[in-house]
Amino acid sequence: MRDVAIIAAGQTKFARTEWPLIDLLVEGARTAYADNRIDESLIEAVLVANMGAGMLNHQSGVASAVVDGLGLMPAHAELIENGPASGASAVKLAFLGIASGYYDVVMVVGGEKMRAVTGWESTDFVATLTHPFAEYVYGVTLPSMAALFARLYMDKYGITSEHLAMVAIKNHDNGMLNPEAHVQQPITMDGILHRPEAVVNNPIVAEPLRLFDCCPVSDGSAGIILCAAERAKEFTDKPVIIAGVGQATDTLVVHEREDPTDLKAVTLASEQAFKMAGATPADVDVAALHDAFTILEIAESEHAGLFPKGEGHKALERGDTRIGGKMPINPSGGLKARGHPVGATGIAQLVELTKQLRGDAGERQIKNAKTAYACNFGGFGNNVLAFVLKKGQ
Amino acid sequence: MRDVAIIAAGQTKFARTEWPLIDLLVEGARTAYADNRIDESLIEAVLVANMGAGMLNHQSGVASAVVDGLGLMPAHAELIENGPASGASAVKLAFLGIASGYYDVVMVVGGEKMRAVTGWESTDFVATLTHPFAEYVYGVTLPSMAALFARLYMDKYGITSEHLAMVAIKNHDNGMLNPEAHVQQPITMDGILHRPEAVVNNPIVAEPLRLFDCCPVSDGSAGIILCAAERAKEFTDKPVIIAGVGQATDTLVVHEREDPTDLKAVTLASEQAFKMAGATPADVDVAALHDAFTILEIAESEHAGLFPKGEGHKALERGDTRIGGKMPINPSGGLKARGHPVGATGIAQLVELTKQLRGDAGERQIKNAKTAYACNFGGFGNNVLAFVLKKGQ
Repeated sequence: MRDVAIIAAGQTKFARTEWPLIDLLVEGARTAYADNRIDESLIEAVLVANMGAGMLNHQSGVASAVVDGLGLMPAHAELIENGPASGASAVKLAFLGIASGYYDVVMVVGGEKMRAVTGWESTDFVATLTHPFAEYVYGVTLPSMAALFARLYMDKYGITSEHLAMVAIKNHDNGMLNPEAHVQQPITMDGILHRPEAVVNNPIVAEPLRLFDCCPVSDGSAGIILCAAERAKEFTDKPVIIAGVGQATDTLVVHEREDPTDLKAVTLASEQAFKMAGATPADVDVAALHDAFTILEIAESEHAGLFPKGEGHKALERGDTRIGGKMPINPSGGLKARGHPVGATGIAQLVELTKQLRGDAGERQIKNAKTAYACNFGGFGNNVLAFVLKKGQ
Repeated sequence: MRDVAIIAAGQTKFARTEWPLIDLLVEGARTAYADNRIDESLIEAVLVANMGAGMLNHQSGVASAVVDGLGLMPAHAELIENGPASGASAVKLAFLGIASGYYDVVMVVGGEKMRAVTGWESTDFVATLTHPFAEYVYGVTLPSMAALFARLYMDKYGITSEHLAMVAIKNHDNGMLNPEAHVQQPITMDGILHRPEAVVNNPIVAEPLRLFDCCPVSDGSAGIILCAAERAKEFTDKPVIIAGVGQATDTLVVHEREDPTDLKAVTLASEQAFKMAGATPADVDVAALHDAFTILEIAESEHAGLFPKGEGHKALERGDTRIGGKMPINPSGGLKARGHPVGATGIAQLVELTKQLRGDAGERQIKNAKTAYACNFGGFGNNVLAFVLKKGQ
């Protein structure tokens, strides 16, 4: 199995956009070119990560359209859908194509144009990943599912609304350092929880989750170019190695899980990725977690092994997860502030970690970062991917 | 790069069904189990091929749902979309996962529930793979695109409506020998072209294409299990080797092609597959072509190199493409008679060829078949995959 490196990475600014889906994806790919201009004729395949082309944009065959938009014919192309973990799934499959020796250079681009529809329609769209007969028909949405999870998790470990708010405040602060983040708004504990106007500014979405506990609905696109590690030096002095790739599924229906607060798939995927990389969570210098809801950053940080179970909120209190802390999480702003165009997210996580490992992350740089971890959470924890990245030599 | 074998293959009967999409996909996977009962715990990943879950069935995260339906957690899972070539794309990616050494055993299942919507909606659904601004908005559909192509191709090579009908008649005859084919109806040249009632029984869909030149709209699912060839003998005495995998894209917009009768992507994908397999078209004993429209079987047979350019219709006249002929094409009935649930098609092609190479194809068996070729045609020829399969030792 050959080693695989990331040789270029970029993303569009996440925001609301009027661009059509294909153009948005083409632009995401171009941000990777802008990062490191690879000769186009070397790109042998393009994997596109996207969840909603059919439902939101009434389009199919989108990967072929992206290859055409980039002028990369006859490069191979397909679209990968795995809910909010589509991005990581596409990276995994590109990784395997290169590891096998079939491809040398592959472009992966993920994106979503979610604001093509109304807010309610986009909430419904995301809810289509729940079980069609056991969950969806009863009106469950991802915020309501996350709220049930949050209540159980908070009760079990003594987590308060203030802890959730600490995640949001940190990630909004980080987003202010990231020009590509959708949300550019500093928030304070007083402003979103304690002052009287907080009930209006930060209304309950699904108790105990408030507006600032939920990621925004964003349009956006992100791209990376992968290459056989043995050839990476032809293209860059700062390759980043994909050292570990893990994935695990869990029951689709959340109420079928023995303990719904146990995110088994996060644990299994992370263990697989760390084992493959010959690393442990203690080696991680910077992490990208899937904070679609604030509670998930806390829960994932524990299930990935970055903190012991029930200790994630204490690490937050200590400031460990801030830039400059012992275990910085989501220096990009995460899904909470960078935004969450679902198909782009898993790739945007790797874009950020690539910049961090190269030392190119500007104001939000984690000093001396050598090992990074990413968790892309699909479904409601029923299909999770984890990556361990290492700074290349 | 490790060799990869097909160790199990099956499909549901293609037909109209009331089953929900997930159940249909689970059943397609079970047909592969029924073919060769592999210990479930050995399945490391499930790749699902599907085009319309979002648009037709209002579902996402379908691969996770299929893994759950099969009880295969924590196996990896994702959905692959590449229009009507989704099936072949999923097989290619599973192939790469095993070739790399990351996986040993992978399930690939493809399916579509197209008759969940009206006939017009299913035609519109397939049309969403055309260019959104240069084609789709002007009302183009796949039958209208195929009709324009047919007229040009017929004029160029002296092909008549009778030649198109010969494809349909042959494939309907073959379908009668395949209990899993959707269409079980013998047709005659007189009945569909020459008798007065033909204008009613076989009306024009898009001139020069008539009803019997077009595949039906089908529901259905097909599954195959792939395994590292070095381990295949643990599971079967009759492995089939995936010896060559090729793919190519072309311009999405058909009118941008220098010569719209030149199916460049078929040629390039086939050349790549034959080269990788160390074989030539002359070695092919049986072929599965993508006859969504009769003209495509003729055109693909030439672009794949099975016949010289402009000779495909003459081979038809001679009966070469019939079972028992020199170059039998679509003994299963093809898309024309077996049916075309789009996500299933690329996999169903390999199901048929696997049976043929094993000598398990019953009444439609091609004698002494050792090398097989498949062409899965995505978009309107803008994303094509080709496989060369060989009988294992």
